[in-house]
Amino acid sequence: MTAAAYTGSRSFTLDEPQAAPPQPGQVQIAVAFTGLCGTDLHIFHGDMDSRVSMPAIIGHEMSGTITAVGEGVTGWTPGQPVTVMPTVSCGTCPACRRGNSHICHHLNFVGIDSEGSMQSRWNVPADILVALPDGLPLDEAALIEPTAVAVHDVRRAKVTASDFVVVIGGGPVGQLIACVALQQGARVVLVELDAGRRQTAAGFGIATIDPTERSLVDYVMQETDGAGADVAFEVSGAAAGVNSAVDVLTTRGRLVMVAIHPKPKEIDLHRFFWRELEMFGARLYQREDFEEAVRLVAKGAVPARQMISRVVSLQDVTDGFLALESGGVMKVLVDCREVAK
Amino acid sequence: MTAAAYTGSRSFTLDEPQAAPPQPGQVQIAVAFTGLCGTDLHIFHGDMDSRVSMPAIIGHEMSGTITAVGEGVTGWTPGQPVTVMPTVSCGTCPACRRGNSHICHHLNFVGIDSEGSMQSRWNVPADILVALPDGLPLDEAALIEPTAVAVHDVRRAKVTASDFVVVIGGGPVGQLIACVALQQGARVVLVELDAGRRQTAAGFGIATIDPTERSLVDYVMQETDGAGADVAFEVSGAAAGVNSAVDVLTTRGRLVMVAIHPKPKEIDLHRFFWRELEMFGARLYQREDFEEAVRLVAKGAVPARQMISRVVSLQDVTDGFLALESGGVMKVLVDCREVAK
Repeated sequence: MTAAAYTGSRSFTLDEPQAAPPQPGQVQIAVAFTGLCGTDLHIFHGDMDSRVSMPAIIGHEMSGTITAVGEGVTGWTPGQPVTVMPTVSCGTCPACRRGNSHICHHLNFVGIDSEGSMQSRWNVPADILVALPDGLPLDEAALIEPTAVAVHDVRRAKVTASDFVVVIGGGPVGQLIACVALQQGARVVLVELDAGRRQTAAGFGIATIDPTERSLVDYVMQETDGAGADVAFEVSGAAAGVNSAVDVLTTRGRLVMVAIHPKPKEIDLHRFFWRELEMFGARLYQREDFEEAVRLVAKGAVPARQMISRVVSLQDVTDGFLALESGGVMKVLVDCREVAK
Repeated sequence: MTAAAYTGSRSFTLDEPQAAPPQPGQVQIAVAFTGLCGTDLHIFHGDMDSRVSMPAIIGHEMSGTITAVGEGVTGWTPGQPVTVMPTVSCGTCPACRRGNSHICHHLNFVGIDSEGSMQSRWNVPADILVALPDGLPLDEAALIEPTAVAVHDVRRAKVTASDFVVVIGGGPVGQLIACVALQQGARVVLVELDAGRRQTAAGFGIATIDPTERSLVDYVMQETDGAGADVAFEVSGAAAGVNSAVDVLTTRGRLVMVAIHPKPKEIDLHRFFWRELEMFGARLYQREDFEEAVRLVAKGAVPARQMISRVVSLQDVTDGFLALESGGVMKVLVDCREVAK
């Protein structure tokens, strides 16, 4: 088997160890594709060296096929196409006790806190498997994990067909949120500074606005008969994005905080009071989000194929990260399939 | 009749005009008591001179008895004890169109934007009347309006009997929120710097904490088996209050923004994301909140009588404001009853 391991300082090494058989309760997967996400890029940049155990096989947006089933595993058979919901929770912390195990206080995020999918054979606990329908191309299936994030975010906002939705930030998650909200029947506008990303969104049938060219608030007021947006997703991580979200919302509008804001940001709490605005943090996904994401990708309701900008081999994973940090791409996949020799 | 009118620069003048009969659709009330609130104090300080039309008869926390009924008014008769829900909405703005007329964009807040209750006879539209049960002392009934604020805030937070609730700020509204949350069966702690206010709360059966003496987070973690608070009400208006509220909440905890924060405040958006926290702006009240407040005051479920620190006459309304700004009081009422001459 082949595995790419992060060894610090923007470097990966390639190893060819013997594949271990699955332990009891585990399943062995022949990994097909692994997508690179923003968190992986942070790891590549060395920003998470204190969290990952080097050499670290990372990767958590994946697809593959079961190759072997460990002792005691039922319901799964070799040959089945699968993806993985990469979270293992403790079951005992306050979040777990209250039914929010997806944001467990001691979450093992698979691919960061434990071994991930940038390898051709991968053993995982059977209970984090998610079945894929036959016929779903495995490169598209690698988009299920970020789609599950978007499904969770849209569900947190309780988006309905009568809503006007503003998505602030047009990276992959912002684009997917816009697509999922459109699937709910909502009207959607994506706010993005980068012309290339706006063009990508337009290709997905998403209305876009460049806030430096036109006032977002004016646009939304015109589109909503002066009411404002029902929902705003803050996916930019920028202070201006937070302000725009607060300004654009209607009475009791819902702001979903998707982006990571490492430092506290100023926010107009008076407007929260005055208009009875609502804000919801949204992180990761729950099982039902993942299963909905499988359905959406499988029926072509999100443009998974079109979002794949580039596919690199396990040998060339650093090239994939360089493409990602250049910013001109949506999704970069790593082809983890064993090459016949 | 007698009326006290704000004339600017911390001054009121007393007039004795002829009482006007109620116009069609109006009811005339013999006002019994008018409570002074923080907004009235802002008016007294001149901070709202651009909004009020001087000479301004202000006052909106009131009780009284119907004395006359205008043409076309049905369902009300002289002699009935009443209070007033002091909001008149436009019916056509986006908030009104969406069922949130209580925070109408063009709200006429009676007692600020139009004539209030600091007078012995007061004509109001019949549709803002709220009936009082017989036997409810009218001084206690003047506490119904701030109680309705508290009921609305607690309802926005969806407080249940299994919740642990933190109220930050022990002014009248904070105290009432604590009382209403206790009525829901929740466990409650009130956070307050002022020893006198903590003592008042203790007299109402509310647990209190001085955050300069003991860590609020440590206290709540101990009380909740390490989980944190389900709900935090920010009623202090202070940056430290906002931070405490965010820090003390459990996973998916609800922060209700009650206080007015005139300037944007920094807030830990990362924690909102990480713990999927929720924030709800809460302003004024809806009809059902007002009616619930009547029930709570009538059955003695909130300590209305004990909250009345002082009663002044219409002649001495400035004394009332001076007591209020000194900070050592809870509620100051103005006795608006006509004195027999």
